[in-house]
Amino acid sequence: MDHLIEKTLSKKTIFEGKVIDLHIEEVELPNGKPSTREIIKHPGAVAILAITDENKIVMVQQYRKALEKVIVEIPAGKLEKGEKPKDTARRELEEETGYICENLAPLTSFYTSPGFADELVHVYLAKGLSKKENPASLDEDEFVDVLELTIEQAITYIKEQKIHDAKTAFAVQYLQLQQALGE
Amino acid sequence: MDHLIEKTLSKKTIFEGKVIDLHIEEVELPNGKPSTREIIKHPGAVAILAITDENKIVMVQQYRKALEKVIVEIPAGKLEKGEKPKDTARRELEEETGYICENLAPLTSFYTSPGFADELVHVYLAKGLSKKENPASLDEDEFVDVLELTIEQAITYIKEQKIHDAKTAFAVQYLQLQQALGE
Repeated sequence: MDHLIEKTLSKKTIFEGKVIDLHIEEVELPNGKPSTREIIKHPGAVAILAITDENKIVMVQQYRKALEKVIVEIPAGKLEKGEKPKDTARRELEEETGYICENLAPLTSFYTSPGFADELVHVYLAKGLSKKENPASLDEDEFVDVLELTIEQAITYIKEQKIHDAKTAFAVQYLQLQQALGE
Repeated sequence: MDHLIEKTLSKKTIFEGKVIDLHIEEVELPNGKPSTREIIKHPGAVAILAITDENKIVMVQQYRKALEKVIVEIPAGKLEKGEKPKDTARRELEEETGYICENLAPLTSFYTSPGFADELVHVYLAKGLSKKENPASLDEDEFVDVLELTIEQAITYIKEQKIHDAKTAFAVQYLQLQQALGE
């Protein structure tokens, strides 16, 4: 696959933020010509498909400034420095929903926007949920409402574009597939 | 849902690129406190789940500089200014794979990274494929290999993380679901 690879000629940091960094890289294309790539560096994230004993999906409703609107998503959050994804998943589930879980298993992982960003989302399946009495609190800049949806409600939310992001669409489809397979 | 909304206090453009722009927004949180948001503006994109008459999925293998590796994805591309998503889908399918299609139907759409970016991906299902004799060529900075995978091969590629991005994971799972439903 060497005929596809781009060599880095130089790299310039444009911005270093609390969530993302922006680099511009000058590259040599496979045909030897120069080009530039705009690249967002992201610490990576987790998302949690948490299913209650009543077979409902735990979701959070929150305002997303990038979209200028409120959408409904499965709980998710950034990896803190040095934190293992599974620990991030437990932490974010508790902080965002007040739930702790008996079983937490890795489901899959995916890059969200490989064209310009290195963000990798680790998706976990959480079962055996119970509400914690004094759960860890949200980050200072986070405000969410917790919802519990049946799979049918989640599918309706997708049609209505109340659910409208990749990780949540994947998670709902995953449950539809398990249901169709009778698992 | 007004209790979740963040008000914009000020907006600063840090970078304007050929693919993405970066803004920093000062916001007032729902509790009245100030915070900042790092926001990537993106023109939006399409992705095409193209199925051959032999029931294979058309994929492209390409180097992603943000990831520093080659991955396999369904064909995709950015919206050009003023271009309708369906036209982008036809154009990208032809440019990246040499295929034109009889049927092109919208499947879904999703935001890829609502935490920091407004990128919306419109996903289309393309059927009735035929190879065009002199297809439109790729962008100057694009180099791809075309692959045609069975659903079983695609599932193996996901396990091996050769397929490792959200839109392609969604597309493969969509086909698994259709198969499980007998559609």
